[in-house]
Amino acid sequence: MSGTLYVIGTGPGSPEQITLEAQAAIAASSHFFGYKPYIERLNLTPDQVAVPSDNREELDRARAALALATEGNTVAMISGGDPGVFAMAAAVCEAIDTGAPEWRGIELIIVPGVTAMLATAARIGAPLGNDFCAISLSDNLKPWAIIEKRIRAAAGAGFAIAFYNPISKSRPWQLGKALEILREVLPSETVVSIGRGVGVHRGSIGHQALSEVKAETIDMSTCLIVGNALTRVIERPEKPDLIYTPRWVPEHG
Amino acid sequence: MSGTLYVIGTGPGSPEQITLEAQAAIAASSHFFGYKPYIERLNLTPDQVAVPSDNREELDRARAALALATEGNTVAMISGGDPGVFAMAAAVCEAIDTGAPEWRGIELIIVPGVTAMLATAARIGAPLGNDFCAISLSDNLKPWAIIEKRIRAAAGAGFAIAFYNPISKSRPWQLGKALEILREVLPSETVVSIGRGVGVHRGSIGHQALSEVKAETIDMSTCLIVGNALTRVIERPEKPDLIYTPRWVPEHG
Repeated sequence: MSGTLYVIGTGPGSPEQITLEAQAAIAASSHFFGYKPYIERLNLTPDQVAVPSDNREELDRARAALALATEGNTVAMISGGDPGVFAMAAAVCEAIDTGAPEWRGIELIIVPGVTAMLATAARIGAPLGNDFCAISLSDNLKPWAIIEKRIRAAAGAGFAIAFYNPISKSRPWQLGKALEILREVLPSETVVSIGRGVGVHRGSIGHQALSEVKAETIDMSTCLIVGNALTRVIERPEKPDLIYTPRWVPEHG
Repeated sequence: MSGTLYVIGTGPGSPEQITLEAQAAIAASSHFFGYKPYIERLNLTPDQVAVPSDNREELDRARAALALATEGNTVAMISGGDPGVFAMAAAVCEAIDTGAPEWRGIELIIVPGVTAMLATAARIGAPLGNDFCAISLSDNLKPWAIIEKRIRAAAGAGFAIAFYNPISKSRPWQLGKALEILREVLPSETVVSIGRGVGVHRGSIGHQALSEVKAETIDMSTCLIVGNALTRVIERPEKPDLIYTPRWVPEHG
């Protein structure tokens, strides 16, 4: 008997930034995995069961959810933002790839959501208005040398760069090093958009020149978007600045 | 008298993939700009006005919307997907940057949405499960040499790559050239996820090896996601394959 596993993106934090599809998937599910703050936002009914998973590693959490689904349950794995962007969708796929054969028979439905960089960008203008990339600064699962290589490649080729997981207690130096690399490659006045607390509530938004950004003022709930050399600041009387990366690149840009 | 301009992402195509915030912004607006198929999906009330803009260039459309907002109206600019990803948010910012000073006094509210690559990825697994980038293959506003440079840099550094605007009648050769470059850099068996029609309806999804993808089978409503060298295919009995890019990268990966 094989059930269903929804992997649901609930959006970047504000309750109104969820999709109708995600709401319907939540209503259809009986058991809920995910970080406690995400689950608590859902207003579950009395017959819906939250499965505590605070201290579980992502792959273990994925396996527990798949095991519960194979018993015929409709299980939800809740991600903030979009589940495919540095969240649970890849862990679930890896668990299926390496796990029990019957897990391949589970109905797997991944429900996309608005990821943090899109919400951050929307709050300040259009800093991702040209080609861009997303890099997680967590080196828990990939060597730091790869992250350095990707930062250099992306900045050197003129991508705007959104950084996820910029800093944490166990990863205190990585963002500072990333900023050092960016300062070698990009002009010091390159515009960096900084969205704070975008993952849990609407948070705050601002911008700084690349030369001014201090890693110690950033926390793990921050999304940084580093512009390219063409990214511009629009000043507005009595309104916050707008930041955008132009759609165009000049010849020999 | 200064009004409001909403720039609204309606999501990747399915009506249920819109956010509550986007629905509320649509309900609050009196005039609607955007591509006809996007406007027609909205079920406007009799007192809401669709402003036809089929043949307008993006910057002209942004200026027309801003001019209408300065008269005190609440104007909506409708984007499919997310307005900050190869859509109208950057054009609106550029119009403000280069336009009438009073446009800086307009209340500009950008409402993010689920962009095509996230919806495509969710349909097939987690092909964006590690660092990734988004590249528009349109060379209308940027030199082709820049696009080539970005493709080489991204593929060489192990980013998964989502291609937007892959091909059109006026840009027939760019995707073929992009595939040639990718074949120089990546293994021929690299997994390419192909979402068709994701921008207008749910469309169809599939995958091919990089060596097998033929540009002439792709159309402009397709989103291509090129994996990195680690991207994997999970075969499932009586279910479509799952594609994912692992969260991890091995040492010396």
